[in-house]
Amino acid sequence: MERLVECVPNFSEGRRKEVIEAIVRAIAEAGKVWVLDVESDEDHNRSVVTFVGEPEPVEEAAFQGIKKAAELIDMDQHRGQHPRIGAADVVPFVPLKGVTMAECVEMARRLGERVGRELGIPVYLYGEAATRPERQDLAYIRRGEYEGLKEKIATDPDRVPDFGPAVLGKAGATVIGARPPLIAFNVYLNTDDVRIAKEIAKAVRHSSGGLRYVKAIGLLVKGKAQVSMNLTNYRQTPIPRVMELIRREAARYGVSITSSEIVGLVPEDALLDAAIYYLQLEGFSKEQILEKKLEKIRRGG
Amino acid sequence: MERLVECVPNFSEGRRKEVIEAIVRAIAEAGKVWVLDVESDEDHNRSVVTFVGEPEPVEEAAFQGIKKAAELIDMDQHRGQHPRIGAADVVPFVPLKGVTMAECVEMARRLGERVGRELGIPVYLYGEAATRPERQDLAYIRRGEYEGLKEKIATDPDRVPDFGPAVLGKAGATVIGARPPLIAFNVYLNTDDVRIAKEIAKAVRHSSGGLRYVKAIGLLVKGKAQVSMNLTNYRQTPIPRVMELIRREAARYGVSITSSEIVGLVPEDALLDAAIYYLQLEGFSKEQILEKKLEKIRRGG
Repeated sequence: MERLVECVPNFSEGRRKEVIEAIVRAIAEAGKVWVLDVESDEDHNRSVVTFVGEPEPVEEAAFQGIKKAAELIDMDQHRGQHPRIGAADVVPFVPLKGVTMAECVEMARRLGERVGRELGIPVYLYGEAATRPERQDLAYIRRGEYEGLKEKIATDPDRVPDFGPAVLGKAGATVIGARPPLIAFNVYLNTDDVRIAKEIAKAVRHSSGGLRYVKAIGLLVKGKAQVSMNLTNYRQTPIPRVMELIRREAARYGVSITSSEIVGLVPEDALLDAAIYYLQLEGFSKEQILEKKLEKIRRGG
Repeated sequence: MERLVECVPNFSEGRRKEVIEAIVRAIAEAGKVWVLDVESDEDHNRSVVTFVGEPEPVEEAAFQGIKKAAELIDMDQHRGQHPRIGAADVVPFVPLKGVTMAECVEMARRLGERVGRELGIPVYLYGEAATRPERQDLAYIRRGEYEGLKEKIATDPDRVPDFGPAVLGKAGATVIGARPPLIAFNVYLNTDDVRIAKEIAKAVRHSSGGLRYVKAIGLLVKGKAQVSMNLTNYRQTPIPRVMELIRREAARYGVSITSSEIVGLVPEDALLDAAIYYLQLEGFSKEQILEKKLEKIRRGG
């Protein structure tokens, strides 16, 4: 496959298996796409689907997923730990191979227009596809969540959607955009005091003075305080640096890290870089990895 | 390629480039083998060559490498930080794919016989190919090094070679065997006191009460104390556990780790496991690695 786009829609359903399955089926059957991963979180009450393919089928599959979610999810009934404004909450396109960011931006705009027109769902463009600088930031678009947006969408000029009506139905609104690959990385603390997770999130995230490529919020998940993050550029802000900063901040409150998790997919380099960091490896080349050498032979190198 | 054996001969030359190149050329030109890596260390005065291929050409290439080393290296002139008894010091066969350990043991015995007969070099079988339990251990065979062995080989029944004459020429002796994949892992300390490296090596290695799959010695390399190790089973004794034990032992002497290095090749899993360990990742599956997913698609999965 020469051209490969990834799409990682987040849906506001993490508990009803049949709903999640129906949405994934709508995506998988829309055309020649491959569903790589489905992660559901009951506390977040949210599922993250990862699929890839060539641009055209990926765009179509994204539309079918949004449509199915709008049919099956009623945002008036939805409760969960994770901020959200819609059934299909956020739908990013990610250039993986042979595709430019500009093409992903076009996909987002074309899809947004169609979702607004055919489904009557308000659409906000975000990330690289944003039409206003402040809307590059997902958290800004999602402020007040579904309930807050419902009150303001018709009256607040700041919340006029890019496409679709300025009226919120039970499917809520959908944020569509384009972005580089990101890593969903969550760190659990040995406390149930969510305020500590919120303080640490504030300390490490870019928006309030922290690391450049970190978005973070504090949540209570599985009875534990969790720092829930998106790492938007793992080469510039590598996972271990984030981990160690959280560790220091946690020590400030006398708590420690019990575990972490990666939700969905992660580029291999992000993990190899973490190993190199912690093992303090000097002069290491990824050429030294046995499997990379064998692969080269297999390809006739 | 269905059947793949790795051979990792260690030669007692790490300084004279033309000698190292001639040995590598002898290996590469012996048949259908692929030289994956050549690592030379000036302080060790030693080079580690890694090559792979099907069993028959690998065995032939190993012979040609030993022959060339015997021609070009004079052990009476050799000085270096690393223990050694011969020009081609140690030659292990490692089963990688579609080959059993028993087949590698056969390769070692057949090669040993030929080296003894055609080159007149004393050969000791070690590792899984050992003919006496104590000779499973490379360090045991190498005790006293070239100089010590020279004195005793003719008289000490304990040092009778498995093949070849009980007389040591300028090429020394060669240790040939079979073993599982190992990782050559060295840790540098912020001290030039080699006694501390030796004490730490003693603490972490299996032979003196340490971790089950660690062999270690203390050396002075690049003016720094170095704990030089072979990790012989990275699944049972993972790299990060070794690293952290060394860190604690070093603290005992008020010193710390400045860096580490991997010499030659390392299985990818060993690094991924290190990342998972240090990031305290829970519930992580290697299926979540993006490249593994893409590879599956590429193969039509």
